[in-house]
Amino acid sequence: MTSAFHQPVDAAEVPRFAGHSTFMRLPAVASPEGLDIALVGIPWDGGTTNRAGARHGPREVRNQSSLIRRVHHVSGVEPFSIANVADVGDVSVNPIDLMDGLKRIEEGIAAIVAAGALPLSVGGDHLTTLPVLRAVAKSRPVGMVHFDAHTDTNDSYFGGNKYTHGTPFRRAIEEGLLDPKRMVQIGIRGSIYDTTDHDWAKSQGIRIIYMEEFVARGVEDVMAEARAIVGDGATYVTFDIDSIDPSMAPGTGTPEIGGFTTREAQQLVRLLAGIDIVGADVVEVAPPFDVAGLTALAGANILFELLCVMAPCVARRRAG
Amino acid sequence: MTSAFHQPVDAAEVPRFAGHSTFMRLPAVASPEGLDIALVGIPWDGGTTNRAGARHGPREVRNQSSLIRRVHHVSGVEPFSIANVADVGDVSVNPIDLMDGLKRIEEGIAAIVAAGALPLSVGGDHLTTLPVLRAVAKSRPVGMVHFDAHTDTNDSYFGGNKYTHGTPFRRAIEEGLLDPKRMVQIGIRGSIYDTTDHDWAKSQGIRIIYMEEFVARGVEDVMAEARAIVGDGATYVTFDIDSIDPSMAPGTGTPEIGGFTTREAQQLVRLLAGIDIVGADVVEVAPPFDVAGLTALAGANILFELLCVMAPCVARRRAG
Amino acid sequence: MTSAFHQPVDAAEVPRFAGHSTFMRLPAVASPEGLDIALVGIPWDGGTTNRAGARHGPREVRNQSSLIRRVHHVSGVEPFSIANVADVGDVSVNPIDLMDGLKRIEEGIAAIVAAGALPLSVGGDHLTTLPVLRAVAKSRPVGMVHFDAHTDTNDSYFGGNKYTHGTPFRRAIEEGLLDPKRMVQIGIRGSIYDTTDHDWAKSQGIRIIYMEEFVARGVEDVMAEARAIVGDGATYVTFDIDSIDPSMAPGTGTPEIGGFTTREAQQLVRLLAGIDIVGADVVEVAPPFDVAGLTALAGANILFELLCVMAPCVARRRAG
Amino acid sequence: MTSAFHQPVDAAEVPRFAGHSTFMRLPAVASPEGLDIALVGIPWDGGTTNRAGARHGPREVRNQSSLIRRVHHVSGVEPFSIANVADVGDVSVNPIDLMDGLKRIEEGIAAIVAAGALPLSVGGDHLTTLPVLRAVAKSRPVGMVHFDAHTDTNDSYFGGNKYTHGTPFRRAIEEGLLDPKRMVQIGIRGSIYDTTDHDWAKSQGIRIIYMEEFVARGVEDVMAEARAIVGDGATYVTFDIDSIDPSMAPGTGTPEIGGFTTREAQQLVRLLAGIDIVGADVVEVAPPFDVAGLTALAGANILFELLCVMAPCVARRRAG
Amino acid sequence: MTSAFHQPVDAAEVPRFAGHSTFMRLPAVASPEGLDIALVGIPWDGGTTNRAGARHGPREVRNQSSLIRRVHHVSGVEPFSIANVADVGDVSVNPIDLMDGLKRIEEGIAAIVAAGALPLSVGGDHLTTLPVLRAVAKSRPVGMVHFDAHTDTNDSYFGGNKYTHGTPFRRAIEEGLLDPKRMVQIGIRGSIYDTTDHDWAKSQGIRIIYMEEFVARGVEDVMAEARAIVGDGATYVTFDIDSIDPSMAPGTGTPEIGGFTTREAQQLVRLLAGIDIVGADVVEVAPPFDVAGLTALAGANILFELLCVMAPCVARRRAG
Amino acid sequence: MTSAFHQPVDAAEVPRFAGHSTFMRLPAVASPEGLDIALVGIPWDGGTTNRAGARHGPREVRNQSSLIRRVHHVSGVEPFSIANVADVGDVSVNPIDLMDGLKRIEEGIAAIVAAGALPLSVGGDHLTTLPVLRAVAKSRPVGMVHFDAHTDTNDSYFGGNKYTHGTPFRRAIEEGLLDPKRMVQIGIRGSIYDTTDHDWAKSQGIRIIYMEEFVARGVEDVMAEARAIVGDGATYVTFDIDSIDPSMAPGTGTPEIGGFTTREAQQLVRLLAGIDIVGADVVEVAPPFDVAGLTALAGANILFELLCVMAPCVARRRAG
Repeated sequence: MTSAFHQPVDAAEVPRFAGHSTFMRLPAVASPEGLDIALVGIPWDGGTTNRAGARHGPREVRNQSSLIRRVHHVSGVEPFSIANVADVGDVSVNPIDLMDGLKRIEEGIAAIVAAGALPLSVGGDHLTTLPVLRAVAKSRPVGMVHFDAHTDTNDSYFGGNKYTHGTPFRRAIEEGLLDPKRMVQIGIRGSIYDTTDHDWAKSQGIRIIYMEEFVARGVEDVMAEARAIVGDGATYVTFDIDSIDPSMAPGTGTPEIGGFTTREAQQLVRLLAGIDIVGADVVEVAPPFDVAGLTALAGANILFELLCVMAPCVARRRAG
Repeated sequence: MTSAFHQPVDAAEVPRFAGHSTFMRLPAVASPEGLDIALVGIPWDGGTTNRAGARHGPREVRNQSSLIRRVHHVSGVEPFSIANVADVGDVSVNPIDLMDGLKRIEEGIAAIVAAGALPLSVGGDHLTTLPVLRAVAKSRPVGMVHFDAHTDTNDSYFGGNKYTHGTPFRRAIEEGLLDPKRMVQIGIRGSIYDTTDHDWAKSQGIRIIYMEEFVARGVEDVMAEARAIVGDGATYVTFDIDSIDPSMAPGTGTPEIGGFTTREAQQLVRLLAGIDIVGADVVEVAPPFDVAGLTALAGANILFELLCVMAPCVARRRAG
Repeated sequence: MTSAFHQPVDAAEVPRFAGHSTFMRLPAVASPEGLDIALVGIPWDGGTTNRAGARHGPREVRNQSSLIRRVHHVSGVEPFSIANVADVGDVSVNPIDLMDGLKRIEEGIAAIVAAGALPLSVGGDHLTTLPVLRAVAKSRPVGMVHFDAHTDTNDSYFGGNKYTHGTPFRRAIEEGLLDPKRMVQIGIRGSIYDTTDHDWAKSQGIRIIYMEEFVARGVEDVMAEARAIVGDGATYVTFDIDSIDPSMAPGTGTPEIGGFTTREAQQLVRLLAGIDIVGADVVEVAPPFDVAGLTALAGANILFELLCVMAPCVARRRAG
Repeated sequence: MTSAFHQPVDAAEVPRFAGHSTFMRLPAVASPEGLDIALVGIPWDGGTTNRAGARHGPREVRNQSSLIRRVHHVSGVEPFSIANVADVGDVSVNPIDLMDGLKRIEEGIAAIVAAGALPLSVGGDHLTTLPVLRAVAKSRPVGMVHFDAHTDTNDSYFGGNKYTHGTPFRRAIEEGLLDPKRMVQIGIRGSIYDTTDHDWAKSQGIRIIYMEEFVARGVEDVMAEARAIVGDGATYVTFDIDSIDPSMAPGTGTPEIGGFTTREAQQLVRLLAGIDIVGADVVEVAPPFDVAGLTALAGANILFELLCVMAPCVARRRAG
Repeated sequence: MTSAFHQPVDAAEVPRFAGHSTFMRLPAVASPEGLDIALVGIPWDGGTTNRAGARHGPREVRNQSSLIRRVHHVSGVEPFSIANVADVGDVSVNPIDLMDGLKRIEEGIAAIVAAGALPLSVGGDHLTTLPVLRAVAKSRPVGMVHFDAHTDTNDSYFGGNKYTHGTPFRRAIEEGLLDPKRMVQIGIRGSIYDTTDHDWAKSQGIRIIYMEEFVARGVEDVMAEARAIVGDGATYVTFDIDSIDPSMAPGTGTPEIGGFTTREAQQLVRLLAGIDIVGADVVEVAPPFDVAGLTALAGANILFELLCVMAPCVARRRAG
Repeated sequence: MTSAFHQPVDAAEVPRFAGHSTFMRLPAVASPEGLDIALVGIPWDGGTTNRAGARHGPREVRNQSSLIRRVHHVSGVEPFSIANVADVGDVSVNPIDLMDGLKRIEEGIAAIVAAGALPLSVGGDHLTTLPVLRAVAKSRPVGMVHFDAHTDTNDSYFGGNKYTHGTPFRRAIEEGLLDPKRMVQIGIRGSIYDTTDHDWAKSQGIRIIYMEEFVARGVEDVMAEARAIVGDGATYVTFDIDSIDPSMAPGTGTPEIGGFTTREAQQLVRLLAGIDIVGADVVEVAPPFDVAGLTALAGANILFELLCVMAPCVARRRAG
């Protein structure tokens, strides 16, 4: 069956700078039918309260992902051999109308879900995760492993706006898309507005692991707890690129110093192996603020790390 | 009376890099009361269909405007001696909610108008000119001199969105804010969607002077026609920075090659002298796409050129 | 028939930053069959003697070409309505082996020619034009309109290397691909190695129009002569982006100040209308040296200008 | 009492990119009267021996500090609730005359001290700390915690110049402003001119903790020693941004690889809690060499960390 | 004799990116003895009132000058065949001490003059021209052709500082180094402090040709007047890179929009042919503010243009 | 004898930005005769399969190396006192012809070896190490300590090309230049093409220490093993700058996240002390992709670290 799976272009045959730019040099396909995992762009930053630009994220992550090869050098996972993966393009968006934008994104992801594929998306700002969850968690709340500098559980902005990239997970919990008791947020840091900023999240049962706790405990210990929190149930993984340090991911809207190194970020994602991932994303890559493509490069690599823990899920399910 | 007018900080006393950054190193004032001309920022790009970033325009135009001095070296106009001018800060905006954003901008400008001051604003994307016109042209339609690469008279985007930075002047005409027979658009160029793209504008009576006609006729001839079109009536001047060539103003959302040189742009604005300007703006300066501050520098200089044709209007009215 | 032609994605439906990046947002097709004009990338800079980087040109020209629309605003030409145009991807290249690289490029273009389509390529360094000519001019020498800062008619480099981006047109003449008496080079400028540098070219009959002569005579007069030189015969058009001023096209290997403005460049290409173009290219866009995408943007626009003089050729031939 | 203290603008009401740029979005006040801590810029780099640019530091630190919020997420300190803090603008400087520059800076800081406020300044090159100390330590020598890649205790440059950014602390000790036995320098690293480079400093009693010792011992152990060295006495804290790694703070005049991570830098400053701080600064942020605002962002965050250890000092003193 | 002259490295033998970086790839020589023209760097910006960085100018102009070849393509002048030219390195400077800096520069240039060579220097800010003139015009006042956006004839800054890059030519006239009646300033533009700003210069007899007059009259007419003003006497030529438009020369301290194109600048310098040049310079190239090396590239080319009008002077003198 | 050794220019006398740019401000010498260690540039990237630019490496490493001083602050080594070191310029290269390029490089290095000096070179891409080894290991295979993200032991590219920057060490082993049993590769990481990618290397006896193993064991343990592997025999050290994290060394052709910090890199090289180094290099610094000079700065510092372990080798040999 493997032979029917899509394969990336080989850089020993076609140089990395040649050809149309797609995620990981995979074929661009018109439909998610037949895919196990659909790589999809969500070029939308309508929820951004400060520096916009994540709308350009998918294009640049595609560009930088031409550096990705076929096999994970640590786990040995060969995602394209055990799962059918392709680039399904970008979902439809509306940069002008926030509510229409959310609706279009939900529909785009719902089509992937309907085709039986898992969405692995590249944002877009973090509000894009809300309509993704509406599609992925339609039938039941899911757990979540959330890497971020910010909890994104605020209530409203600018005199009552409920939908911004600072509010998606409060909305998702209110809508019953997330089970807060199966949620863990890792890497939270930076000055806050009020000492009560995180009270709502904690009161819901969300486990917040601040950067300082992460540093003290180390990657393995933290991820053991994270895996225990989400357990065996369906889990969504969301990776905000601003969880990584601004020196390694400067191209983002709300940088906070003191972030993860990319080395830590790789380890964090690798230690998701074994959980039941029903979708994942990398968000907040904002190329207009990037330098040397560093942020998109980090995003592309995290995307590959996520793929290498998702593909075995697919293979396990297929194996039964 | 002059002695009571606000004056910029002198760069022979305080170096340009020192002190808080305000438009042209003028005092930041809390209220437009007592001003003849209010320099005001509109940090909002909610109408942008492609590359956002003009929300950051006011801050960078302020920074670059520290290079501006007190006297126009060609006309000899000393704007700060004949008009009371200050930096009133930024209007309130809402980056998340388009309709609320338009309302806040209108209110902010209306307060300036109510105080008897002329607004000279820095955008922001070109949709910001619509709420400005709602405040400035509340009592009667005004004429307009419009420098731009694009006519911005489209009807709708993305399946029906009426308010984008490609539609403000169709809306303004529909709302009775602009008298299309007293409108001239100069510098229009670049590929278009359809041969009928400009038909609506022309059918309304707008005079479109394409870049090619401008090149053939020269600045003086074109501006003589422009002045004739707007005549003696109240006129608004809007300067889209993308009318200038992308090499001189790269930091903008929709660059079109073959634009005005800054030298031409200066001459164009200088030849507005004598018309009755009731407000003006510089829009679409998008710093995230800028290099070396060139676009903000051009914007700051155009702002000064506009001020130097507006201040004499003020003085004439006072005298007259 | 028109309805069967490929059409670009409409930016009023899908924002410019969304979707896979192709030339002018046209469909990416696997084969040139059925096309009138094939937009093709040649990501290869193996002939570069100084600053490499043009290998990355096609990708970035594709990115910037998302700003192009469907209709030429001056000539009214609608290229996608009168010719079938698509993006056929990049030819196969070899960044390591110069002679193999030339062979692969020739084969890639030959396939386009064999399918009955005209190649409109984006380089790549100027040596790429040699294998293109081997494919296009296989049956007979062609004339050439050549926009450049340099004549590219040197003999050899580095102790005998015959194939560099400084030598393609000497080689092409020697190989009988070009009729030097039907060749004109426009925009030549900059310091030279020896007063005899251009003697060989002139002795072959090539007409060199230096930048200074161009400035003195103007675009129309120069292009009238150019059209007369190439006459009615089959003609290739090659546009080296370094013919444009470095401020407007900094991303190139051998910048020379005092170049064409983009406004002049647009006019130059527009005045090619009516000649019999059998292929064309834009070369030497080197993104690693670019700023703000200016060079790729200029390249994308020149590509559109070339398309708008090539498409009518196709239509005329079809009409008979 | 708290209600009378200055408060920053709330980013949930006014977006971060809006409004005049001040330190941490605090009010700009004309006088230090009534303040506990005065945030002040020292835009001067007259002592720079290599790459100038720190004169632009205050402006860009102000810009980036718009990302700072009100509460420290680890210590829970709310500096604006327990101390009255505002932005008093920049001290007067003279970019042309070194000795006059030093005099003006001293006078500017002396006015803050005279008003009973603690200066928390943003340079400027490291020579600016000398006139600050002249104002702060006028009545008695103070101790110092000094984070830096360099000891800045050289004697002279260029044939006898005693005042450069490589000499301030030798001068300050000679002038009796610093008690060298209560001085600790942390993070010192990089190649040196002579094995005796640091002998003078050590002979005075300064404790130099090289980067290698820091790495071996860790933040907590090092800071325990630092606190012991300065003891209970009045202490000045100076933070040279080049103590941070160049990848995280590239915009500085004398970068040395192998520096602190920002995560370490935050911890270092946090562990100053409890000492008696009489003033502090962040110096050597040189925006012309910065990328993506990283250095100014790091500077702004370190400024906030310093504020969060200074404000409790103020509160303790008030409490008596 | 020619065979003994220094020759640049040939780019057809050694690629431009190889080898140590010297002006125009000429030999670096330890002494000016035997030279006709000494290319010399003056890495000093101690007189800069706003954005420093011209201290880095010589290094980057050397880098970009690797693109220069041996023969002027318009005049046919071969400077290295008719004059002995080499790179004598940088004069000694002092970045910390303004008066010592001026003294060192004067001594460095005086050594060149004493050796019988003409100095062709690369600054450095415009104050560097003052000590150069002290060396070059020691025996008698010289005339001057001055290309600039600013007259640089102010009196003092910051409460009495007489020596800044805004004052060199007032000082030079006061010191009897310049004959103001044989001085012409071309390209002056931009807002001014006071309508009387230029009165002193005019009262001395300096001819100021504003940019607007230049545009109206054209290069040839203006330069005919300039040549008439300086006549047959010894003349110094100073070229401030900010005379060129900021889009073509962004890397400078005091950019003013509406400047010369590089094409105009080349023509301006070419039309100096025939006057008696005793020294020349290119100043105010500030690499920290440059993009893509554009400013240094423009500087290198202007340097070559100057050399191509100076070398024939040398040849004429030798010929007697 | 020491007094006869070349010494760098002192930055306390001549500022770092002044003077011709050479490695570590050492004299540029025409011949390696009399040197113990020859600093030499290899400006060639003919073997690069993706992003070229390392040809510009030597020039920028020279620029950034002006920040290096005379004494190693940890080991106390004074390389210029115990070994005669100078900058011998760049070897001859051919950017167009791969095989000729390899030959020229070998000849250039052979001349250094013949003069009795050790080559310490700056690339250039990693294929440059092959011709260096041909010169250095002519008489017997050498051991190698290899810092890199990639093993560079592939067999061929693009349908049979044997010489690329991905193949040098397979070629070197095949040619008998390297003893694979005395080879260790440290820092290897990133996705791979096939699980068998590293099998050949391992089958030859090369010890590959992946990044993950390095992180787990620490610098000291890893380097103890590395020293044991190479033992007392002649050893070459090659440092690919992409072994360092892309945030600290973005200017390289094949960035892989999760790399060494510069702090680790410094420690790694320092722990080479005591082995018998017969040559070393720093490769893959590609300035067109660099930001803020970070990569060249890292390269310059690693060069100094290498020098500080090589110079004592020289001294030991001399001592005997």
